[in-house]
Amino acid sequence: RFGTDGYECDCIRTGFHGDNCTVPEFWTRVHLLLKPSPAAVHYILTHFQFFWDIINNTFLRDTLMRLVLTVRSHLIPSPPTYNTKYGYLSWESYYNISYYTRLLPPVPEDCPLPMGTKGKSVLPDTNVLAERFFRRNKFRPDPQGTNLMFAFMAQHFTHQFFKTNHKVPGGFTKALGHGVDAGNIYGDNLARQLQLRLHKDGKLKYQLVKGEMYPPRVSEVPVHMVYPEAVTPEQRLAIGQEVFGILPGLTIVCDILKTEHPTWDDEQLFQTTRLIIIGETINIIIEEYVQQLSGYLLKMKFDPTLLFNARFQYSNRISLEFCHLYHWHPLMPDSFIIDGEEIPYSQFIYNTSLLTHYGVEKLVDAFSRQPAGQIGGGKNSHEVVLKVAEMVIRESRAARVQPFNEYRKRFNLKPYTSFYELTGETEMARGLEELYGDIDALELYTGVLLEKTRSDGIFGESMVEMGAPFSLKGLMGNPICSPEYWKSSTFGGETGFNIVKTATLKKLVCLNTKWCPYVDFHVPRNEEEAKPRKPSTEL
Amino acid sequence: RFGTDGYECDCIRTGFHGDNCTVPEFWTRVHLLLKPSPAAVHYILTHFQFFWDIINNTFLRDTLMRLVLTVRSHLIPSPPTYNTKYGYLSWESYYNISYYTRLLPPVPEDCPLPMGTKGKSVLPDTNVLAERFFRRNKFRPDPQGTNLMFAFMAQHFTHQFFKTNHKVPGGFTKALGHGVDAGNIYGDNLARQLQLRLHKDGKLKYQLVKGEMYPPRVSEVPVHMVYPEAVTPEQRLAIGQEVFGILPGLTIVCDILKTEHPTWDDEQLFQTTRLIIIGETINIIIEEYVQQLSGYLLKMKFDPTLLFNARFQYSNRISLEFCHLYHWHPLMPDSFIIDGEEIPYSQFIYNTSLLTHYGVEKLVDAFSRQPAGQIGGGKNSHEVVLKVAEMVIRESRAARVQPFNEYRKRFNLKPYTSFYELTGETEMARGLEELYGDIDALELYTGVLLEKTRSDGIFGESMVEMGAPFSLKGLMGNPICSPEYWKSSTFGGETGFNIVKTATLKKLVCLNTKWCPYVDFHVPRNEEEAKPRKPSTEL
Repeated sequence: RFGTDGYECDCIRTGFHGDNCTVPEFWTRVHLLLKPSPAAVHYILTHFQFFWDIINNTFLRDTLMRLVLTVRSHLIPSPPTYNTKYGYLSWESYYNISYYTRLLPPVPEDCPLPMGTKGKSVLPDTNVLAERFFRRNKFRPDPQGTNLMFAFMAQHFTHQFFKTNHKVPGGFTKALGHGVDAGNIYGDNLARQLQLRLHKDGKLKYQLVKGEMYPPRVSEVPVHMVYPEAVTPEQRLAIGQEVFGILPGLTIVCDILKTEHPTWDDEQLFQTTRLIIIGETINIIIEEYVQQLSGYLLKMKFDPTLLFNARFQYSNRISLEFCHLYHWHPLMPDSFIIDGEEIPYSQFIYNTSLLTHYGVEKLVDAFSRQPAGQIGGGKNSHEVVLKVAEMVIRESRAARVQPFNEYRKRFNLKPYTSFYELTGETEMARGLEELYGDIDALELYTGVLLEKTRSDGIFGESMVEMGAPFSLKGLMGNPICSPEYWKSSTFGGETGFNIVKTATLKKLVCLNTKWCPYVDFHVPRNEEEAKPRKPSTEL
Repeated sequence: RFGTDGYECDCIRTGFHGDNCTVPEFWTRVHLLLKPSPAAVHYILTHFQFFWDIINNTFLRDTLMRLVLTVRSHLIPSPPTYNTKYGYLSWESYYNISYYTRLLPPVPEDCPLPMGTKGKSVLPDTNVLAERFFRRNKFRPDPQGTNLMFAFMAQHFTHQFFKTNHKVPGGFTKALGHGVDAGNIYGDNLARQLQLRLHKDGKLKYQLVKGEMYPPRVSEVPVHMVYPEAVTPEQRLAIGQEVFGILPGLTIVCDILKTEHPTWDDEQLFQTTRLIIIGETINIIIEEYVQQLSGYLLKMKFDPTLLFNARFQYSNRISLEFCHLYHWHPLMPDSFIIDGEEIPYSQFIYNTSLLTHYGVEKLVDAFSRQPAGQIGGGKNSHEVVLKVAEMVIRESRAARVQPFNEYRKRFNLKPYTSFYELTGETEMARGLEELYGDIDALELYTGVLLEKTRSDGIFGESMVEMGAPFSLKGLMGNPICSPEYWKSSTFGGETGFNIVKTATLKKLVCLNTKWCPYVDFHVPRNEEEAKPRKPSTEL
């Protein structure tokens, strides 16, 4: 803003000019003309198996993977820009990492309407939204075959960097690592880490139950954990994340290191193990988790050297918008089927005894076989998690998050022109029209969750096009992916480096269990995979 | 280390191979063969005025400036690596910004001698070092013509990022911005900033003395300031840096912004002013301060776009070694000459009334005319600052900083083979030999300060070759230099952007004073400059 009612737009390096930066420059015009639509790219990436079988075995796999990484991550500003307090660049929003960053600034305080200049003067009641558009009537499994193992990995993985500080309003986070730092295992602060550590051989504290290793009890390791009152200290397990982590997927990395480096002290074993675990996590997330999510036939590859010649910032700041759109609670089923028994939510949540009762093997096997719900398309949230959608929407309003269509534009997608175009059906479209009044006033979370899904897809176009950039930038922006860190000595030598480079979900589980269950992010694909596993199954 | 007495070296991307990474690869060999020595490059850059007059007016200025920036800054690892606790890569040393980082890890604890494997079992007494090699007999002015204005700018500027936390041992810093963040003006934490701010129109609190604006008194703004007991609260001025800042070189940036943006609130005016002041600082430091220091005939240019196509990380972590070698106390004169009066240290230090008594104009004029001492070559520290050299050496020992020759190697310089080769004379060389026993056991600070100076240079080769990379990486690694930030809107529009792009020391002073004194980082070069200035002198 200039003067009292003038304004100027800064079009530099946008490829556009004009008063509102709306006139494309010549090369922008050419680029826009030649650029395939996200829908076309997605179609190619998810079809033509034969073609991809060839690509995946040539140098073109690297070329395309590099392209995916650079195109996606260049949509995320780095160094970061705005936050909930600052809608303009400032040192404070750069420096104060207690804030989530934001891709778009908040809706200005002096706008006439809650979503800016369009829509109704009062936003829809969140309870009405939840009941009409989110509540599940009948469980709709994900057509991509995603399972509960994926759902729990999503929870375990994302809760290391999504830790909204609910004590203070204003978009603050407690996860100051802003990325994959294994804070879900080691805690988000040094005091908690020191409590959880055994201080011997680089290990964490543990307890033995029936000869098997589990996280320690809160009675032994008095760190703050969130449990309902009814759970006794003996039943409460202590791990890095306060909220919980259902799977003790810790590896025996430090034992391997100790064998190779008998002279290392506890601290060096611990710290090096931590870097290896961060590396393993990123590898599994890219090559298996993102692979499953994308449905791409291009075989994903975790190889930091792909970016060594690119301009890329090895740093990351978690976005409020990323946190919001990652609330994937429709994944949750109606109940849990473990070892032939059906377990309702009431007996599942916070029930750490399930872990010791069934053992890791049976849980992993069960979760890997049970389908998760489709995330997109609406009306697929179990009532237990229905309040989460309401909470996200309330938080989004408090933070004055801009409309869904503004984010569409930010990610180079065409804004929707009607609710019908968004949902691809009439019932929800009519309901949304009635409640929001204008498609340009639709809220981000509602839009992303209710958008029509891609054919046989887990969610719609927007979730992929908005989520992938945040995700890949966060994964590859980790310091261990930088040329300074990505070398064998960082991980204690070739052995450690290989653990990182060859990590798989299956190894993570089966190198830590007595027998090898069916373990995947996809429900069994064929008869072989569907066969029951027994304790005798070899690794 | 592998096993109990084995080891492996990780040579990746060093350009060398072999058990100890000492065998150059083919292209490394070619590169080393063709690469001119630092001495040759320095000679060219400081001679052939006619040649440089041409270069400075062509596109070659940009090309060479880009080369200077990239070659220098690539010597600094980013993301950062070690610190005083961690001699290996770890998440903790990456994440915990309370530490200074370190370019080389500490001398391992299990080494047989204090400096590793060479030298004496007891390091020289610091007092003996100070008295024999640092104490000034006769003031030796800097042959490059550096003045006291430069010395005070050095102090004012560097104390925003060198703030060693002396309360806890182990190489910690209180300046968590790790770079040019204007924390010397605004304080190193939010609480202090809020105390210092007027909370109106983006301004800081101030006091008026004889109609002129000065920083407020501690009695008005109760922030912690370090002053001797004898100084009364009325005499104590409150500014960002606790230790002090002799020059109130604050600009009237927020007034200019306020005129253009009447709708902006205090916060936006303040935050945008801060970014402009950071930009002005970096500009003046590169184009005038580093220019003066280097003696280069290549005209330095502050232009962040030079790096937009380079691989460059926009982040910075201050190094303990950088902090140590930047103790340039030989700059200080025997006494201060202001307005024809000679003022001894006893009447100068902490005497804020000098500022109000003489006024900024006369102080700047005086400081710009008085020569500073030569930093290198030894025996040029006034007794008042002699204890500082001792303190640096003590700190360096506590932090187990590696020998000078190890840093020579790290910065691609040949390690010295004898003390005589280092000092270029016999007396100090003999003394050092006697005290250290082995050139490979010489300490970093002693080495950098006692190395023979370059002909007519302010210091020797090592200070330049080690200091410049840290300095340029820090200046250009600031987020405001990134493509995300380097645009007019960041600075409130073209006016603010131009303030940043055209900042000079002279404007900084003369736009804030009643008359324009002689102001430069160099003593007067000719009769014109040497002429006395009077209140009537136009801007």
